[in-house]
Amino acid sequence: MTQTEKALRLKTDEAWMDFALDEAKKAWRLSPPNPSVGAVIVKDGRLIGAGSTQQTGGPHAEIMALRDAEARGENVEGATVYVTLEPCSHWGRTPPCALALIQAKVARVVAATGDPNPKVCGRGLRMLEEAGVEVELGVREKEAKEVNVSFLARMTRGTPWVRVKTAVTLDGRTALPDGRSKWITGEAARADVQLWRGRSGAVVTGAGTVRADDPQMNVRLEDQIRQPLRVVVDPRLETSPQARILHSPGGRVLFVSAEEHRERRDALEAAGAEVLRIPHPEIPGRVDLARLMVELARREVNEVHVEAGPRLTGAFIEAGLADELLVYMAPCLFGAGLPPAVIKEPQSPGEALRWHIHSLAPIGGDIRILLRR
Amino acid sequence: MTQTEKALRLKTDEAWMDFALDEAKKAWRLSPPNPSVGAVIVKDGRLIGAGSTQQTGGPHAEIMALRDAEARGENVEGATVYVTLEPCSHWGRTPPCALALIQAKVARVVAATGDPNPKVCGRGLRMLEEAGVEVELGVREKEAKEVNVSFLARMTRGTPWVRVKTAVTLDGRTALPDGRSKWITGEAARADVQLWRGRSGAVVTGAGTVRADDPQMNVRLEDQIRQPLRVVVDPRLETSPQARILHSPGGRVLFVSAEEHRERRDALEAAGAEVLRIPHPEIPGRVDLARLMVELARREVNEVHVEAGPRLTGAFIEAGLADELLVYMAPCLFGAGLPPAVIKEPQSPGEALRWHIHSLAPIGGDIRILLRR
Repeated sequence: MTQTEKALRLKTDEAWMDFALDEAKKAWRLSPPNPSVGAVIVKDGRLIGAGSTQQTGGPHAEIMALRDAEARGENVEGATVYVTLEPCSHWGRTPPCALALIQAKVARVVAATGDPNPKVCGRGLRMLEEAGVEVELGVREKEAKEVNVSFLARMTRGTPWVRVKTAVTLDGRTALPDGRSKWITGEAARADVQLWRGRSGAVVTGAGTVRADDPQMNVRLEDQIRQPLRVVVDPRLETSPQARILHSPGGRVLFVSAEEHRERRDALEAAGAEVLRIPHPEIPGRVDLARLMVELARREVNEVHVEAGPRLTGAFIEAGLADELLVYMAPCLFGAGLPPAVIKEPQSPGEALRWHIHSLAPIGGDIRILLRR
Repeated sequence: MTQTEKALRLKTDEAWMDFALDEAKKAWRLSPPNPSVGAVIVKDGRLIGAGSTQQTGGPHAEIMALRDAEARGENVEGATVYVTLEPCSHWGRTPPCALALIQAKVARVVAATGDPNPKVCGRGLRMLEEAGVEVELGVREKEAKEVNVSFLARMTRGTPWVRVKTAVTLDGRTALPDGRSKWITGEAARADVQLWRGRSGAVVTGAGTVRADDPQMNVRLEDQIRQPLRVVVDPRLETSPQARILHSPGGRVLFVSAEEHRERRDALEAAGAEVLRIPHPEIPGRVDLARLMVELARREVNEVHVEAGPRLTGAFIEAGLADELLVYMAPCLFGAGLPPAVIKEPQSPGEALRWHIHSLAPIGGDIRILLRR
């Protein structure tokens, strides 16, 4: 191939991979704890099949795309498969996708990024190559890594990706001085929050928020199949066993305490919750959030979505655990009220930790700011 | 003309008018108190001349465009002129542009919007029509009105357009608790502020800011020719005659007081400032900001740019005088500190005055939010 032909092929590959990335995003709320993968099958310049990861135990993206092609009456022999993550090579909850692609006699597999899962890591592509399938890696790698930022965080560092959500006015108030905060942001912003909750493996809140707002902390979207684990950081186990979070549809409820309170624990367990004690090693009465994150990773939580009051929000940020801040800003002024995060003020304006703007968008009449460290 | 031909001509007209609008924006910092107007001359589908309003007393956009065509050796006879505001018809500081266009024998004049200036208002277009020039009005009218939002505000309601600028952290702090605020936002945001100052006819601040920061309140851009009037709201005339604002290059300085203080007044006047007393009719010791705006309009100020502390900022907002809020948001948290505006808190979260998002953009590492009522 000449340089021009190579460049042209790369452009074509990137364009098809973009379709596969769009497929992958469809799996965000469905696939966890599995990564969200998309695949498209292309033959003679035509898309003949597309698919994305189904829920745990269900088919992966490649299988969905092969089935889609079959349903369309298309022959995949000799086709190119674009897949956003290296096809799996191991017998897990499903047979290896690499094998299915070999059996389907596809000619070429283009993967955006390798799978860091030690059970796969390179083996999927090798299996394909050894079977004579042409293999390419790294097309739209950055974008593909972004699609699975949470899964990759858990795989590479052993802790979930942590997103801390808050809603504030222009003058940084999350509530009026008396605590009233319903509603700072509009309907569109609140619907958007549901999508972020729906992607997560666990929604974390604090006992103060449960007491003040009595929230359900579930995902109320018609097409939501998975429900994230609901975690309440409750150092002294003060939550009432009558709290709505314990009696509303949604994921399992986990209370995390710092202190031992046998009777309260029994009452919460009797109401269907699990109770774990993870005390902070240095600060009495505080939960060790870092250890809680490790525990959640152990439970295959890729992504933690924190929606809490100023103190727990501040604790996540000050502990360096927040990978991103999701800020909904209502374009109004309160003049007075509660802050989004209780943190220690910096020594000087220039020393405040500055976040990087990952995305910025109007949502209804509000503003959504996604910040990364 | 058939419907299709008409539609096609409108599309073409709009495309050329967009060039004229771009020209108009070049005059923002130069033309006030005159409107910022752009003009392009098109013949046989080619742009043969372009121009925009020069500083007061200098040529208007149409004349600049005619001269540009001449300099290019182009013949404008029979050409179409796209101009963002109705050509003027009166002998003011310059001869009427409508007359120049007639003398140049252009065939057609397309104006985006009419001039509400009572000295022009429709007469410019009528003059052209009576001379046999084909005339069209209303192409990209909305965009053209936006380009001159400040001039049009003064013309139609008799008061300047008022922009209130503030810089805050994510948690709504303009300074640390001890008042330190240098610098919350980055260099790009501060350079951007200079452009907004440069567009304005007056920059307004308060005595507190002058005392705390000793700012120059001038426009420090190499290509800035005009300097806006500098206004200090100083109810008791407490500003030191040594303040930098009085001894730095820039526009004239106007102090506005609520109380009479003969000696302080004399000292400020001796330092080169003008002093006006505009007391609030109901609140002793406060300046009447609404009357100050009328006074500034009388002085041909189209646009007022307010950069003040929390109290004066809050006073502009609560008096209903702020047409827009220009918020620079630094993606960091202070945990504690001063608010952007001292205002009375709403009865409930839903009752807070909500602003409309006019534009939203990252500026360097910060966020710029322009809000309108």
